Amino acid sequence: MEQHDIFHPDSTVSPAAERLRYILGEDDDLPTPTLFTEMDTLQHDGDDMEWKESARWVKFEEKVEEGGERWSKPHVSTLTLHSLFELRTCIQTGSVLLDLEGYSLPEIVGESDGLIGPELREKVSFVLLRKHRHQHKKPMHRSLADMGKSNNCPLKNKFMKKIPRDAEASNVLIGEVDFLDKPFVAFVRLAQATTLGGLTEVPVPTRFLFVLLGPHGKGKSYNEIGRAIATLMVDDLFSDVAYKARDRDDLIAGIDEFLDEVIVLPPGEWDPKIRIEPPKKVPSADMRKSVLNLNELGQVNGMVGGAGGGEDEEMPAPHELGEELQFTGRFCGGLWLDIKRKVPWILSDFSQGFHIQSISAVLFIYLGCITNAITFGGLLGDATDNYQGVMESFLGTALAGTVFCLLGGQPLIILSSTGPILIFEKLLYEFSLGYSLDYMELRLWIGLHSCLQCLILVATDASYIIKYITRFTEEGFSSLISFIFISDAIKKMVGSFKYYPINRGFKPDYVTSYKCECIAPDQGEPFSSSPSSFSSTSSPSSFYTFYSPSSFYCLDWSQLSKKECVKYGGALLGNTCKYVPDLALMSFILFFGTYSMTVSLKKFKTSRYFPTKLRKLISDFSIFMSIMTFVGLDMLVGLDTPKLIVPTEFKPTRPDRGWLVMPFGKNPWWVYVASAVPALLVTILIFMDQQISAVIVNRKENKLKKGCGYHLDLFWVGILMAVCSFLGLPWYVAATVISIAHIDSLKMESESSAPGEQPQFLGVREQRLTGILVFVLNGVSIFLAPVLQYIPMPVLYGVFLYMGVASLAGIQFWERIKLYLMPAKHQPDFSFLRHVPLRRVHLFTLVQIICLAVLWILKSTVAAIIFPVMILGLMVVRKMMDLMFSQHDLAWLDDILPEKDKKKEKGGKKKKDNKKTKAAETESDEEVRDED
Amino acid sequence: MEQHDIFHPDSTVSPAAERLRYILGEDDDLPTPTLFTEMDTLQHDGDDMEWKESARWVKFEEKVEEGGERWSKPHVSTLTLHSLFELRTCIQTGSVLLDLEGYSLPEIVGESDGLIGPELREKVSFVLLRKHRHQHKKPMHRSLADMGKSNNCPLKNKFMKKIPRDAEASNVLIGEVDFLDKPFVAFVRLAQATTLGGLTEVPVPTRFLFVLLGPHGKGKSYNEIGRAIATLMVDDLFSDVAYKARDRDDLIAGIDEFLDEVIVLPPGEWDPKIRIEPPKKVPSADMRKSVLNLNELGQVNGMVGGAGGGEDEEMPAPHELGEELQFTGRFCGGLWLDIKRKVPWILSDFSQGFHIQSISAVLFIYLGCITNAITFGGLLGDATDNYQGVMESFLGTALAGTVFCLLGGQPLIILSSTGPILIFEKLLYEFSLGYSLDYMELRLWIGLHSCLQCLILVATDASYIIKYITRFTEEGFSSLISFIFISDAIKKMVGSFKYYPINRGFKPDYVTSYKCECIAPDQGEPFSSSPSSFSSTSSPSSFYTFYSPSSFYCLDWSQLSKKECVKYGGALLGNTCKYVPDLALMSFILFFGTYSMTVSLKKFKTSRYFPTKLRKLISDFSIFMSIMTFVGLDMLVGLDTPKLIVPTEFKPTRPDRGWLVMPFGKNPWWVYVASAVPALLVTILIFMDQQISAVIVNRKENKLKKGCGYHLDLFWVGILMAVCSFLGLPWYVAATVISIAHIDSLKMESESSAPGEQPQFLGVREQRLTGILVFVLNGVSIFLAPVLQYIPMPVLYGVFLYMGVASLAGIQFWERIKLYLMPAKHQPDFSFLRHVPLRRVHLFTLVQIICLAVLWILKSTVAAIIFPVMILGLMVVRKMMDLMFSQHDLAWLDDILPEKDKKKEKGGKKKKDNKKTKAAETESDEEVRDED
Repeated sequence: MEQHDIFHPDSTVSPAAERLRYILGEDDDLPTPTLFTEMDTLQHDGDDMEWKESARWVKFEEKVEEGGERWSKPHVSTLTLHSLFELRTCIQTGSVLLDLEGYSLPEIVGESDGLIGPELREKVSFVLLRKHRHQHKKPMHRSLADMGKSNNCPLKNKFMKKIPRDAEASNVLIGEVDFLDKPFVAFVRLAQATTLGGLTEVPVPTRFLFVLLGPHGKGKSYNEIGRAIATLMVDDLFSDVAYKARDRDDLIAGIDEFLDEVIVLPPGEWDPKIRIEPPKKVPSADMRKSVLNLNELGQVNGMVGGAGGGEDEEMPAPHELGEELQFTGRFCGGLWLDIKRKVPWILSDFSQGFHIQSISAVLFIYLGCITNAITFGGLLGDATDNYQGVMESFLGTALAGTVFCLLGGQPLIILSSTGPILIFEKLLYEFSLGYSLDYMELRLWIGLHSCLQCLILVATDASYIIKYITRFTEEGFSSLISFIFISDAIKKMVGSFKYYPINRGFKPDYVTSYKCECIAPDQGEPFSSSPSSFSSTSSPSSFYTFYSPSSFYCLDWSQLSKKECVKYGGALLGNTCKYVPDLALMSFILFFGTYSMTVSLKKFKTSRYFPTKLRKLISDFSIFMSIMTFVGLDMLVGLDTPKLIVPTEFKPTRPDRGWLVMPFGKNPWWVYVASAVPALLVTILIFMDQQISAVIVNRKENKLKKGCGYHLDLFWVGILMAVCSFLGLPWYVAATVISIAHIDSLKMESESSAPGEQPQFLGVREQRLTGILVFVLNGVSIFLAPVLQYIPMPVLYGVFLYMGVASLAGIQFWERIKLYLMPAKHQPDFSFLRHVPLRRVHLFTLVQIICLAVLWILKSTVAAIIFPVMILGLMVVRKMMDLMFSQHDLAWLDDILPEKDKKKEKGGKKKKDNKKTKAAETESDEEVRDED
Repeated sequence: MEQHDIFHPDSTVSPAAERLRYILGEDDDLPTPTLFTEMDTLQHDGDDMEWKESARWVKFEEKVEEGGERWSKPHVSTLTLHSLFELRTCIQTGSVLLDLEGYSLPEIVGESDGLIGPELREKVSFVLLRKHRHQHKKPMHRSLADMGKSNNCPLKNKFMKKIPRDAEASNVLIGEVDFLDKPFVAFVRLAQATTLGGLTEVPVPTRFLFVLLGPHGKGKSYNEIGRAIATLMVDDLFSDVAYKARDRDDLIAGIDEFLDEVIVLPPGEWDPKIRIEPPKKVPSADMRKSVLNLNELGQVNGMVGGAGGGEDEEMPAPHELGEELQFTGRFCGGLWLDIKRKVPWILSDFSQGFHIQSISAVLFIYLGCITNAITFGGLLGDATDNYQGVMESFLGTALAGTVFCLLGGQPLIILSSTGPILIFEKLLYEFSLGYSLDYMELRLWIGLHSCLQCLILVATDASYIIKYITRFTEEGFSSLISFIFISDAIKKMVGSFKYYPINRGFKPDYVTSYKCECIAPDQGEPFSSSPSSFSSTSSPSSFYTFYSPSSFYCLDWSQLSKKECVKYGGALLGNTCKYVPDLALMSFILFFGTYSMTVSLKKFKTSRYFPTKLRKLISDFSIFMSIMTFVGLDMLVGLDTPKLIVPTEFKPTRPDRGWLVMPFGKNPWWVYVASAVPALLVTILIFMDQQISAVIVNRKENKLKKGCGYHLDLFWVGILMAVCSFLGLPWYVAATVISIAHIDSLKMESESSAPGEQPQFLGVREQRLTGILVFVLNGVSIFLAPVLQYIPMPVLYGVFLYMGVASLAGIQFWERIKLYLMPAKHQPDFSFLRHVPLRRVHLFTLVQIICLAVLWILKSTVAAIIFPVMILGLMVVRKMMDLMFSQHDLAWLDDILPEKDKKKEKGGKKKKDNKKTKAAETESDEEVRDED
């Protein structure tokens, strides 16, 4: 070990580091191949000897279980310090042959053992040339239970996939022999990687050979030394050294450097028998190499120290949303940049959609959209006397969605009707009724004005102001939307208990006393003295024109249904009339069952059962499977639960309106001008709703690669506004929860490379195909009615509940709320907890909760219409928090607001990386065991 | 580092080890105190300096989070190798003062810095005497959110509980100062542990001081060195060395020995920022010390090597059930030993029952027993025409259970009626009806014979044969019983769908067309020409004597209930007569809800929320809380779900039997003799049922300390047989599932000592109180009827389901079944998987599954009566498996059958330890985060 410690501050760089810096710096442009290491141990069977594979390393160690005849799970190689020092001695004293020419094992053996006496040479050769038995080759004596052995080849090929294409092998051969009295060690690097038949488990050419043969009795020590060199060979830094070493000393410098970086666990605090699972991420080789170039190696080593991680992390970078939101200052400058950014991706926007995952995404989002369309359609119909009903909702969703996904800046965003718009329409309809204005014409003009205003916002790059929307605002908004989803789903469920009241007093034995009869009006009140009793039962007049009074009395009242009875003025008499059996409870079972099953199946990805691919499939299709299961259960039980009903005929919901709204003729001229005022409200509403959702979708954590297009998005939303207004369809804007669900269902993970390595979240399948398909399906749903009619509404409410809960999951705000309930010692190791005092974290969360509560209350009143404006209020609150919290705390809990004028350039790049790491950490919490 | 490697095989022991062996061997009888280590770092605040606590170690490291002002979670101290070597240099070059006299910090400082020049001496003293700020003392500048600061004292006291009483402190002081140009290092051991006011966070006297002051710029290195010495000080072996060291070299030898044992993680496979959670167990210090006394240290080091664990484990010991089951060869020898073993515990058998946990156990088991009593009572009543009904079941359960728990050998066993006995009673009753024998008298004689046979088995120590019951048999039996529980619970649930059929065609709109009317017989068939139609409606004759024919026709048939209608011969006419609304679905919700809530609440113990104690309480009372919740829900909904009905009057179910059965007079004399034959069947049945359950309860994993009492158990079961026969009560025998539930609800865990240390499973609260209470409560349930009548039966079926599923959880057989569904790489790291090839494991499991399937089929037929004999069959199958599997494989998967004559004495003790470790490993899987 070198002396570069606190007592010798002058020796700034260790000799080993200097040496390495030299050899690694030589030709940096030529990356060395990845190494696969196999360790074979010499087995004695009487006089016979053979090499048996005992462990292998792609990145982590896999051991052949003693007796278990199976591979252990990949684990971190825990070594003893002792074995590393012994290995160092081995390299120091053994033979090191670099760039040996040789194309077969005998050749190499012939050359490599030239360093020992001729009498041993033959014996060593003999031993080295014994045949190699690999783990997948089962012994000849097979038992009855040895079924399915023939699939060794596919198994082998499967493992090959884990090894990079350019990989080369290093073989470690360890054995006890009786003819040696001191160990024989050879480290061989071949000039050319060569496939030495049968030496390696997989057809990977061998580049390195390490041989350790020694006298009997020290087998375990040899084994540990073998594990040490094998671990070194797969170390990114040492393998580089091994490839580039000029002599023995270079190798030793590599070992010293490795020793300098190792992490040590105290023997009293750790049980060496525990196999350590591979960590989620490891420091990159590049970072480790760059360390070599630093001046103060000792200092750097200090940094590596385990728990010292906290203080070395820099503060996260201030809030930046990328160049997309810079104020260009030119007319339509942002829009033009957006289009320029999007054009190159046109082809891949479609080609990337062809993937099995897209099918599940389309199904999932389609069901979400259609449920939304029906719900909002129904509510809009109520609010506007069917001027806009379910049919218009379907058509509008299909039209707006398809156009947006086809041409919008961020095709992952899903457009939908939203609550604030619904409330605006309701108020507008009431206003026009009250002032005798034509609703549809008024609405058209508001739409046109709003469209114009949106276009002005686009042209002036106004979207740049959303860079003031930090995590605080963003999470407040998306939590609120999630809560609305959850509360709506539960409200709907509770509603079914009101809609289908349970007869709580029902006694099975008294079944004979329960009935509900329809009584003819006069029969119903036979002794009623009041002559008004008849007229008071409000029967529609049409009835009287149809039935003659004589037939009226001939009517078999007892045969009438409940609705008919009421319609014809009959009275319902009996103790069961207001009850509906079973339906409420069945609805609950369907609702809760769909939700729980979806949650369980989603979690199934992390279970131990079944192969990874199958698990992933189950997890991806969890919603579809849950819906299918409970639709099946519903059909099996056969109860008359409320079903999804879609319109089947293509015509406006209200017969007295056409498909096109005329702009002139019904309202006075000044209305055309004055409608600019309410349009302004709509514009703010649409702008905020649209852009915050877009910010959430474009979050750095989602690792989107094709860039965003805030201006382009807003442009199309504006245009669609005008089109929908002309066609009398609802207005559409980005829907946060469904958009998040869309993103989640399209997330990609890396196929894990080395066994034990965690798959990395790579990004999202950014394409336009799924969105377009969803909305085309929405459009043709009119023809799918025969299939869709089997889906009970409670099942869809269950899906809604799941969507709401799932979209809460990734939100830091939600994690911080949970901290309130956790004793400090059980809290997860969030990086902000390492840096911000808990009470400050709690205070920050409390402010957020209060803001949300206020918003929730506002939302529940008529003030809901100015709800999006309230989001602006959130931004103001955030600005005021600069006074309550230090910038340091805010940097960890939120983002730092961008400064007005100057931008911090210093260390920008580096800090950006840091931020990325932070984002990656957040994600990694969600990631799951998924090795294959 | 010493040279004791493979190249120098002659230097068998390192000099460091030799040195340590000498000093540690000196006075081994005097254990050294546990050390608490606190590390304080010098903080500069302008010109002011103060020491700030930065980390502490009880056993694991807890760090003060930078900025977080909070303790990190306890974690394994990951050190750099570099810092350990620097520490070694520090001890080599710094001042080492052993057994310093001094009772205050200034005194010590005065003595300890005597080694440096006088000009620095004063400055160093000044720095060392700066005041110390500990983590729990908050800074003065407090924020608004600083609520609840005043509870610092309780927090401090809470932490004190984690430190052993005899503990002493070691203080590590690390600082950067500007007046030094090279580091000043001092290692001080005081002659007497002294409370140096304010130095340590807790009032623990200080024994060691380590001071490292150095020039600015190397703070991180100093910090790492401080962490290294602190970690060493809490190391069991090094702290011994530190207490006993005679000079500097002893300390260095201690460091070297520590270095020799450290576990090394390769830098490329591990991220040093990850804090490693404390392992479930660590190697004991004794084991590590004993290693020092071995000859071949190098070899031993090789053994410690990480993944090398597998091959070093010995084969598990052969099956032994302890001395309780040795064949004494004396008359009543075993029984006598049992009594002798039990008598000393009499007092603690009651005193240990006083614990909060007992309450939850009593409630849980009481509800299980009472449900069982009602279920079996109902079934027995059906089978024996109410000769034994619910009343007898209640009384018998109370009597037998109380006696057994009061006087039995293993009071944790819960007696209950079991399936095979039920079937026997049914067949017996049918037999006595067929042959006109008096059932009760016949039964009495069978009971008496069986009692006698049991006593003979007791007197001859026959129970010793159950040592041939290995894990295979035991698990087969208990799995079967668990499956029966689960299947019964589900059957009952499905039954309620039959009992309360759902009207699947119900259309809410046609509520008017649903009715069910009671029609008078002649009215019902007004045009029936058959005169027999009237007599065919079988009305009891009592009715005719009561009502005159005239009043019969005056009866308001429409007012009759369903039962009355049928009773009086009316006909039920209508489309709702055979349907019962809501009840089936409500029952399902109650059943499934109770089960799921119990499972969730049980899991709550491992959640992150709420303090440990509260979590444990919730977990312990999970069943009670679930029952309460769903009883509440049921009351809220108010539906007429089937409720628990207990008899309220103390009288035999059948009026024509008394409380005492007379032995003579009703059957011919030969019956008294011949009944010995069926009695033999009952005896086998009882013997097997009782003793296998007892084996399961007495499993080593349960860590019972008071020994078992197989002979005493059987004695009381026999006696109770006779008593119950005289009283005409059902027969009782140990019930596996409820007994396991009893044990589970009484499990004790250690209060974890050091932060981060896992609580250990200590054993079970072995006492008689809970059992006695359960059965006394059973007896007085007759008076509890007003309360119990609110409990819906589906809730209790949910509890049954939970009991069945929970008792499967700990069974290795079940774990092995799950392996079928797991790809090899996802399988848990079971020790048998490391040693037995997977296909052999699968084969073994398959044999078990087949055996179970056969037993299940037998159980479902009349052969059920010989079901316990089948358990003997299992033992034969196990014997045959000796031919299919190697003893090695069986040792890991099952137990090795004991050899007939000789016993392996060699290494018995050691192997026993090994087995214990294995058992501990199995348990640790179930253990949970539970530090406080």
